[in-house]
Amino acid sequence: MAVGDVVLGANQYGKAEVRLVRVTRDTPVHEIEDLTVTTQLRGDFEACHTTGDNAHVVATDTQKNTVYAFAKRFGVGSPERFLLRLGRHFVDGFEQVTGGRLAADVHAWDRIAVDGEPHDHAFVRTGRETRRAVVQLDGDDVHVISGFTGATVLKSTGSEFWGFPRDAHTTLAETKDRVLATSVTAWWRWADADVDFEARYPVVRDLLLSTFAQVHSLALQHTIFAMGRAVLEACDDVAEVRLSCPNKHHFLVDLEPFGLENPNEVFYAADRPYGLIEAAVHREGDPPVPHVWASVPGFV
Amino acid sequence: MAVGDVVLGANQYGKAEVRLVRVTRDTPVHEIEDLTVTTQLRGDFEACHTTGDNAHVVATDTQKNTVYAFAKRFGVGSPERFLLRLGRHFVDGFEQVTGGRLAADVHAWDRIAVDGEPHDHAFVRTGRETRRAVVQLDGDDVHVISGFTGATVLKSTGSEFWGFPRDAHTTLAETKDRVLATSVTAWWRWADADVDFEARYPVVRDLLLSTFAQVHSLALQHTIFAMGRAVLEACDDVAEVRLSCPNKHHFLVDLEPFGLENPNEVFYAADRPYGLIEAAVHREGDPPVPHVWASVPGFV
Amino acid sequence: MAVGDVVLGANQYGKAEVRLVRVTRDTPVHEIEDLTVTTQLRGDFEACHTTGDNAHVVATDTQKNTVYAFAKRFGVGSPERFLLRLGRHFVDGFEQVTGGRLAADVHAWDRIAVDGEPHDHAFVRTGRETRRAVVQLDGDDVHVISGFTGATVLKSTGSEFWGFPRDAHTTLAETKDRVLATSVTAWWRWADADVDFEARYPVVRDLLLSTFAQVHSLALQHTIFAMGRAVLEACDDVAEVRLSCPNKHHFLVDLEPFGLENPNEVFYAADRPYGLIEAAVHREGDPPVPHVWASVPGFV
Amino acid sequence: MAVGDVVLGANQYGKAEVRLVRVTRDTPVHEIEDLTVTTQLRGDFEACHTTGDNAHVVATDTQKNTVYAFAKRFGVGSPERFLLRLGRHFVDGFEQVTGGRLAADVHAWDRIAVDGEPHDHAFVRTGRETRRAVVQLDGDDVHVISGFTGATVLKSTGSEFWGFPRDAHTTLAETKDRVLATSVTAWWRWADADVDFEARYPVVRDLLLSTFAQVHSLALQHTIFAMGRAVLEACDDVAEVRLSCPNKHHFLVDLEPFGLENPNEVFYAADRPYGLIEAAVHREGDPPVPHVWASVPGFV
Repeated sequence: MAVGDVVLGANQYGKAEVRLVRVTRDTPVHEIEDLTVTTQLRGDFEACHTTGDNAHVVATDTQKNTVYAFAKRFGVGSPERFLLRLGRHFVDGFEQVTGGRLAADVHAWDRIAVDGEPHDHAFVRTGRETRRAVVQLDGDDVHVISGFTGATVLKSTGSEFWGFPRDAHTTLAETKDRVLATSVTAWWRWADADVDFEARYPVVRDLLLSTFAQVHSLALQHTIFAMGRAVLEACDDVAEVRLSCPNKHHFLVDLEPFGLENPNEVFYAADRPYGLIEAAVHREGDPPVPHVWASVPGFV
Repeated sequence: MAVGDVVLGANQYGKAEVRLVRVTRDTPVHEIEDLTVTTQLRGDFEACHTTGDNAHVVATDTQKNTVYAFAKRFGVGSPERFLLRLGRHFVDGFEQVTGGRLAADVHAWDRIAVDGEPHDHAFVRTGRETRRAVVQLDGDDVHVISGFTGATVLKSTGSEFWGFPRDAHTTLAETKDRVLATSVTAWWRWADADVDFEARYPVVRDLLLSTFAQVHSLALQHTIFAMGRAVLEACDDVAEVRLSCPNKHHFLVDLEPFGLENPNEVFYAADRPYGLIEAAVHREGDPPVPHVWASVPGFV
Repeated sequence: MAVGDVVLGANQYGKAEVRLVRVTRDTPVHEIEDLTVTTQLRGDFEACHTTGDNAHVVATDTQKNTVYAFAKRFGVGSPERFLLRLGRHFVDGFEQVTGGRLAADVHAWDRIAVDGEPHDHAFVRTGRETRRAVVQLDGDDVHVISGFTGATVLKSTGSEFWGFPRDAHTTLAETKDRVLATSVTAWWRWADADVDFEARYPVVRDLLLSTFAQVHSLALQHTIFAMGRAVLEACDDVAEVRLSCPNKHHFLVDLEPFGLENPNEVFYAADRPYGLIEAAVHREGDPPVPHVWASVPGFV
Repeated sequence: MAVGDVVLGANQYGKAEVRLVRVTRDTPVHEIEDLTVTTQLRGDFEACHTTGDNAHVVATDTQKNTVYAFAKRFGVGSPERFLLRLGRHFVDGFEQVTGGRLAADVHAWDRIAVDGEPHDHAFVRTGRETRRAVVQLDGDDVHVISGFTGATVLKSTGSEFWGFPRDAHTTLAETKDRVLATSVTAWWRWADADVDFEARYPVVRDLLLSTFAQVHSLALQHTIFAMGRAVLEACDDVAEVRLSCPNKHHFLVDLEPFGLENPNEVFYAADRPYGLIEAAVHREGDPPVPHVWASVPGFV
């Protein structure tokens, strides 16, 4: 493995961002599934790195072809199921492949309404959040992570921030009423791979958002922990929740120079910098599995 | 005006992308309005350009302050009304300001549902399309343009493309059944400024989208013209419609090498290049007003 | 042309963002040209819009093929020459095509240095600015516009802003020394199409940047006018210059609470909002040609 | 720590993307340093998460203030030194802070040339690559990682890809001559924190790029390993190199339908999908430290 005393460490490779649109047209009422799929394989690929011998390298083009062929042969169903099937194919079908990381973003579509009725075969993209899935395989060890990104939420009241320490660099005023806004990136690790992902995804998502809404917040950390906890308490099939939440600051505009009061009515929504709050929540006695999260974006 | 024989031509200046969030909290059920506002002024600003004399220059910082002060003083109401009020203020309040271009993007929010009920003060961004407004003032001449961008729509059937000329560079096959997808950028010019913009916006948007759904398309141009025509036929208060629509190609994946048929089921959604189809539709005898569109993005 | 009393107005269509990389490999020292090309045609396309008859529609796929075939057949040479040749081909080769707009972005590459020597066939993208070209054809009427975007420049001193009017919404302090920063989008219209574009482009670009550097600025408007004027005074072959420059505000950080002075040393570079200053400069007696600029991005 | 049986796992928080511009103006020849800084702290922050008690929470606003105050007090010098100083301040200054992750992107500026001479106080952004640094602190355990992103490189020859396995989904042709292009994201972990980072950064960067140029490539993996190995062999102070490289496919355009040959001259540069090749290279006997890389972007 060594070239001189230089050795190959962790590595993975594959095809990223395969844009797959699958139409099911068995009846006049079409269905559409729209995914961006990434496959990455791990295993015995040293020769390729050290000598350029590609005998073990399942070409990334082959991986892409497999994505499209599987979409036809088996359908998609759910991103998690689709990735599990793809992952098993590569790990079981190629001796040199010992594991991999497979990921998908889901682009959701609604039917266009015509005279109040959903159209049979015309759709409009809906953009509230982007659903995501990651499958990690290491031999027979399989982990499924579901999540979403880009759910931008805001509370116009019900958020405080005070009691923090003051040092020589502290100028922030304490507040008992502020706007709290964030763009939630959420991931949750399922306890096992035998889950009805399509049914469970909206349950977890709605729990996260409704908890955000309901918690009287004393800090974004406080809100985030409550969000994860709500999922763990309600969902036995979820083992761990990870949240990465920018604090999208909304600053009260000083209108005094113009002879106006501003009782939490007019805000400037700032771009940068932003607070960035990240936390994992799990159950006592349930050991975390950090390697599963190695390539999962979110904890920046 | 000349410096030597060099003269100042068309010019405008202002503050771009003022992020304004306005919360109405008269009752426990809060309302939220979220806009990105740009103001640009035109008028007698030669001295600033040629000699650096700023005596006429309403500072862009002042323009920003005015946006926030007006949001408090008068509320927003609709982006068109808000821009009209701002524009009048600058044109009427400063002798050197003869006109301007004011624009706003609207970021829409839904209430978060908690136990099926919309929450009083917790919101989630909705992302189907971004509503936009532009107001052009030239003295007493006022034009209001409304529109949206980023409405991504797709028909999984009901689209053909054939009968086009074939020259030495033509390889495209004719098709009687293809996926048609685009991201609609639409603008429409109102016949006058006395419109209930909040009520009329969804009417025009829904007409555009439902027409996209219903037209059996022979070309994206064919669809676009029908969309604009539908609005003009149904809406007396609209004088002109402009549409800029990328043809977001969905290519059928060749699955034959894998022993699979692909009867319009599995597609590759390409990024670039894309067709780009742009057209204006108006009424006979209603003269177009090209200067109004000078700084309106969309016709790339 | 009318469908009822609804008529087609201005329209154009084509293929956008064709990614073209042309390698010249006649000798071991390769050359690389890297462009993103957009072609858009205008002419007699009513039947397509109103009835879906495509007999006149040069398919956008055909336009793309032509770009690639011309790159092989004639090379690129300069983006302006390449677009002129393409444009003439469409206008002269198809009766129904009366004009068009063709545009290109140029992605520049340097050679990678190996032991201080430029490598024969290994390149690295250089990113100071993106060169652009637009050709507008209307029958025999031809206009060539060159320019660039994304040249971000900054002066750490030599910029003042004072003497502006103060109204009820003015809070901005006057300053005799500020950071001035902008990202220059520049376009210039050549007096005719018979120009050595490759030789002239760096001359105009360098004039614009060095003028930015040298002008003691009393306003960004003041700087912009001087930049355009410098080009017109030095370049007889340039007829008009248009500049669109965001004022990228650098705010002095208030360090007083930490017991520190801040004599123009530590700045916060803000994202939004920003000033936006746009101006055209031309020669007295040289009439502007606004229609040429109709689809040129820059004046937002 | 538990709330019921729900416990807080890994967590960190801080201020992200603080835009800092530092001008040194001791002489008429100004110097400019331009960074985007992110600070994230780890330690005893359970109470905040579980009960909203902020007594331990160094406000992210305080972190931002500290960045600016330190830039004035101590200057920047190098991003690595600046982050080390900041990190030590938080870990040593607050009992509850046990570690953190600090990161910076560096935005490079050249002087604008005026008459061939570099200007004293006028600058233009240069965009070849974005230099980055990450510092990880865990008590007295300190790791410094340097790197860059966005160095887009291309070889117009000297790249082959053949000998890969062919299965039922393989259609890719073998090639002995292709364009190889990638956008390098590179990170390297220094053996210790006592390095002249400013002097060493260009040495490592140039080694990576010149090795890309010189290796006759049999696979992107082959090139990447050689790049990392070159650094480890030449630089005793580097302990590990990590590379994440998209294979930016350049497809040969089929010009045969137009009666033209295409001997590797005209290419279509595709956006998506792309190959994604990621590898770490280290020295035998030098144990990897995976936790250091936990929040380092690059391995997607």
